[in-house]
Amino acid sequence: MNFSSKLLENAVNEVSQLPGIGKRTALRLVLHLLKQPTSQTHRLSEALNNLVDDIKLCKKCHNISDVDVCEICANPSRNEEIICVVEDVRDVMAIENTAQFKGLYHVLGGKISPIEGIGPHNLTIDSLIEKVKSGTVKEVIFALSSTIEGDTTNFYIFKQIEKYHIKTSTIARGIAVGDELEYADEVTLGRSIVNRIPFENSL
Amino acid sequence: MNFSSKLLENAVNEVSQLPGIGKRTALRLVLHLLKQPTSQTHRLSEALNNLVDDIKLCKKCHNISDVDVCEICANPSRNEEIICVVEDVRDVMAIENTAQFKGLYHVLGGKISPIEGIGPHNLTIDSLIEKVKSGTVKEVIFALSSTIEGDTTNFYIFKQIEKYHIKTSTIARGIAVGDELEYADEVTLGRSIVNRIPFENSL
Repeated sequence: MNFSSKLLENAVNEVSQLPGIGKRTALRLVLHLLKQPTSQTHRLSEALNNLVDDIKLCKKCHNISDVDVCEICANPSRNEEIICVVEDVRDVMAIENTAQFKGLYHVLGGKISPIEGIGPHNLTIDSLIEKVKSGTVKEVIFALSSTIEGDTTNFYIFKQIEKYHIKTSTIARGIAVGDELEYADEVTLGRSIVNRIPFENSL
Repeated sequence: MNFSSKLLENAVNEVSQLPGIGKRTALRLVLHLLKQPTSQTHRLSEALNNLVDDIKLCKKCHNISDVDVCEICANPSRNEEIICVVEDVRDVMAIENTAQFKGLYHVLGGKISPIEGIGPHNLTIDSLIEKVKSGTVKEVIFALSSTIEGDTTNFYIFKQIEKYHIKTSTIARGIAVGDELEYADEVTLGRSIVNRIPFENSL
């Protein structure tokens, strides 16, 4: 692209560093900002700067937090005997929205992925094992996405905590509520049959 | 969404003000920035702030520029007798990329659109008419997109400059180079037949 302005070119280049945003989209976004009051752009810049400068990770669960110990970990009514292992803050938000889980979380910060150069030591696995070792934890629930990386990570953690003889579980895989059987993939449908539950539990 | 952090919520809210970016995409972008070195976010914020604070519009053509008179208007080898009327900086960039136009531009800053509350006085039409009145302009080329708003704007400007008896033209509409006839819409195909050109001119 041939820009008439260095300032414009610079802004477009920076915005197009974001994932999924190419030069054309970046130009559209930047021209939009130019049409708005400058205060909007100042607010945006300040919010982003404040975020990256001041954000903390909860010392206990490693979730994104404004304080040293996050709201969930600091809440005395949550059951600290059950730990749900998730990948990132989005999974915590998704599970919290269901209002079905009253235990604590442990945010790994990713999945083991040799292709992306992410090994166990880039994740918070050691801290999880420390928690299990300390003895308060009775159950670990694996809630990683069901991909090769997710399954590898689950298995790696399972092997490390096996010797402490606590309960381990994984969230149920099956046909989504409201979905039609004929469109489900075979693996999911197969698992949902093998792991069928008593009818009265589903009411 | 239920955020675990005010800083995160604030950043997501600001990013989701951008057109075409919802809360989920905003969260994805913001979490991406958190995984990068903070210097990337600082560069992004600075580039955006510098843009909205220091950008100028060229005094002659109203295109986005870092200086009072843009490179194109300041270039003595460009033909100031031909003015190409466009909507915004993206159209200037697109036409400049063809290297087929040696005249000057006039950037309107939009199209007349009563629905969006944009009237002739929100655009740089008066400044265009002043240019025509001054007598140096011999031809005005309308290069707005071919929509109701574009046609309305063309016609409004045409009515105002008609009395100065200069040449007015509009860019050719027709089948795109490389396109198949059978997939073209009827209006475009019809226009391309009515406005056919001598075969030797197309070689």
